[in-house]
Amino acid sequence: AAAEQEQEEEEEQEMRRRCQRFMAPPVSGPRELWRRRRDMRGRMELLIMETQAEVCRALAALDGGAAFTVNTWERKEGGGGISCVLQDGQVFEKAGVNVSVVFGQLSAEAVQQMKSRKTLKDKDGKVPFCAMGVSSVIHPKNPHVPTVHFNYRYFEIEEADGTKQWWFGGGTDLTPTYLNKEDAVHFHKTLKEACDKHDPKLYPKYKKWCDDYFYIKHRGERRGIGGIFFDDVDSPSKEEVFQFVQSCAKAIVPCYVPIVKKHRHDPFTPEEKLWQQLRRGRYVEFNLVYDRGTKFGLATPGSRIESILMSLPLTARWEYMHTPPENSREAEILEVLRNPKDWVH
Amino acid sequence: AAAEQEQEEEEEQEMRRRCQRFMAPPVSGPRELWRRRRDMRGRMELLIMETQAEVCRALAALDGGAAFTVNTWERKEGGGGISCVLQDGQVFEKAGVNVSVVFGQLSAEAVQQMKSRKTLKDKDGKVPFCAMGVSSVIHPKNPHVPTVHFNYRYFEIEEADGTKQWWFGGGTDLTPTYLNKEDAVHFHKTLKEACDKHDPKLYPKYKKWCDDYFYIKHRGERRGIGGIFFDDVDSPSKEEVFQFVQSCAKAIVPCYVPIVKKHRHDPFTPEEKLWQQLRRGRYVEFNLVYDRGTKFGLATPGSRIESILMSLPLTARWEYMHTPPENSREAEILEVLRNPKDWVH
Repeated sequence: AAAEQEQEEEEEQEMRRRCQRFMAPPVSGPRELWRRRRDMRGRMELLIMETQAEVCRALAALDGGAAFTVNTWERKEGGGGISCVLQDGQVFEKAGVNVSVVFGQLSAEAVQQMKSRKTLKDKDGKVPFCAMGVSSVIHPKNPHVPTVHFNYRYFEIEEADGTKQWWFGGGTDLTPTYLNKEDAVHFHKTLKEACDKHDPKLYPKYKKWCDDYFYIKHRGERRGIGGIFFDDVDSPSKEEVFQFVQSCAKAIVPCYVPIVKKHRHDPFTPEEKLWQQLRRGRYVEFNLVYDRGTKFGLATPGSRIESILMSLPLTARWEYMHTPPENSREAEILEVLRNPKDWVH
Repeated sequence: AAAEQEQEEEEEQEMRRRCQRFMAPPVSGPRELWRRRRDMRGRMELLIMETQAEVCRALAALDGGAAFTVNTWERKEGGGGISCVLQDGQVFEKAGVNVSVVFGQLSAEAVQQMKSRKTLKDKDGKVPFCAMGVSSVIHPKNPHVPTVHFNYRYFEIEEADGTKQWWFGGGTDLTPTYLNKEDAVHFHKTLKEACDKHDPKLYPKYKKWCDDYFYIKHRGERRGIGGIFFDDVDSPSKEEVFQFVQSCAKAIVPCYVPIVKKHRHDPFTPEEKLWQQLRRGRYVEFNLVYDRGTKFGLATPGSRIESILMSLPLTARWEYMHTPPENSREAEILEVLRNPKDWVH
């Protein structure tokens, strides 16, 4: 018994050390995280906090100029979050990495909106829920460095009859201003390797889901060259899906950082910067018109607007009837946005 | 009979002369317009074409630099439109004035979306419809010249049992970057005078409707300092509502042009330009997240995306957690956007 207690104490100390490497104290507090260290809620909160810290450190090192501003916020209905934003740096125009851990009671209607396929047994009344995730959008200054977005999330709800539902969602996707095939292949291959460790069926399925999800219907274009996207995943088992999500989270830095390193000092023309600004306009269109996460956030009382709209670029542009010339590098990327490619075969 | 025919021919000649002053030949053609000169569809098309021409001429004269690009487009399902856009002028960053006259069959669901209150008898099947209107957004360069928006529209639908419904909608509203009380009073007073000629109840009612409609819920702010807005208006009679709409259309130039003239050469600082860009970001948020016309347009197959999104500014900006200092001119306008004022008493 004494040995057991000693081990527990050691584990608690270890948890405190891990928490010290985070961008801010975790929403649940180190002691609560330690208490929940074997529950999925505790394990996932640890993963999203570690992912936030790892990505912020890598980006700040790449930028060399600005640092991340860290804001913690509380949600009066339960939970809170940590928003890390680097604005107007040397390499990055605007980079945000958010963590949120929120819980409480949600209307069944709101819960329904969070889910793309599942249906709830009880359509009326309140549902106890817990939602947590890490999400990020990184807009660089140089038009030869692509924008990246990722989001990994976990949900739990309890229906009126006591049934518990849980599911994971997430994805990582790339939005270049200009197409660089080598970068596209590197990005997709790194994601595929992360997926393949778990099941070779995952990458093709989630690559297609990504192309379908990030579709700007009124333009007939995708937002970018894709990556992976998945939602409502609850099989084969909670443990296996978590292991998969963990592999995806670990793949973020190796996916993206080498591309930034390669291009951050590339020369560019004012025309290339202008094309980047027009593509940023399309990014805004997708996020405000279609993105389920953004729409859900804007419609949810008590949500933190600044964190939700952190995904918008610092600057964007809309020109009436802009069409790039045939055979230009601008037309080249448009072609890929209209007809997604297979990058790994 | 000969005298009557002579008069008809004279009227047709007169119609051809009026059409020559338009920005482009009307969607229905001069002969069809003349044939319909006593129908509301003909009279309203004439009004929106004349409004487009009047506003474009006034703006081009104010700008002195760029001219309007005129594009006509056809909708394969029936009808078409004329888009006039002036981009990157001396005074205006982006000014668009669109006319559209579209007709055909719409799903009852789509018709329902066009209406804010009315319900249809038949919820299934197709409904013959005709929708026409003039709409405009004018974004100036100088942050001391406000953005203006107006839209006047007429709808007709025929239900399965032969019942015909018609209604008018419209409004004119102002979005300044900085508050100028004198301008706000001039703008609202000019609109009030146009309304009061018809019914003293109209201005207060439509002023409030405008404040309620242009509300960016997630920000707790209105898009601008309002004006008038109305929808689904079908009383007291078709003739009286048309006369009212005509008065509103005639008020556009006197509402706005004096304000542009007064401020177009005002000096401004880079900080003032930056605040304008942040306010443009809010304009984009309203238009893409809330505006019913934009949402309806983006969701309607065969609609012309370039004309719908012409309302977006040339450039916009989003900064994380931007808050203007207390007692600044930026805080002054925010206060009015949060708590709309009565400008005419």
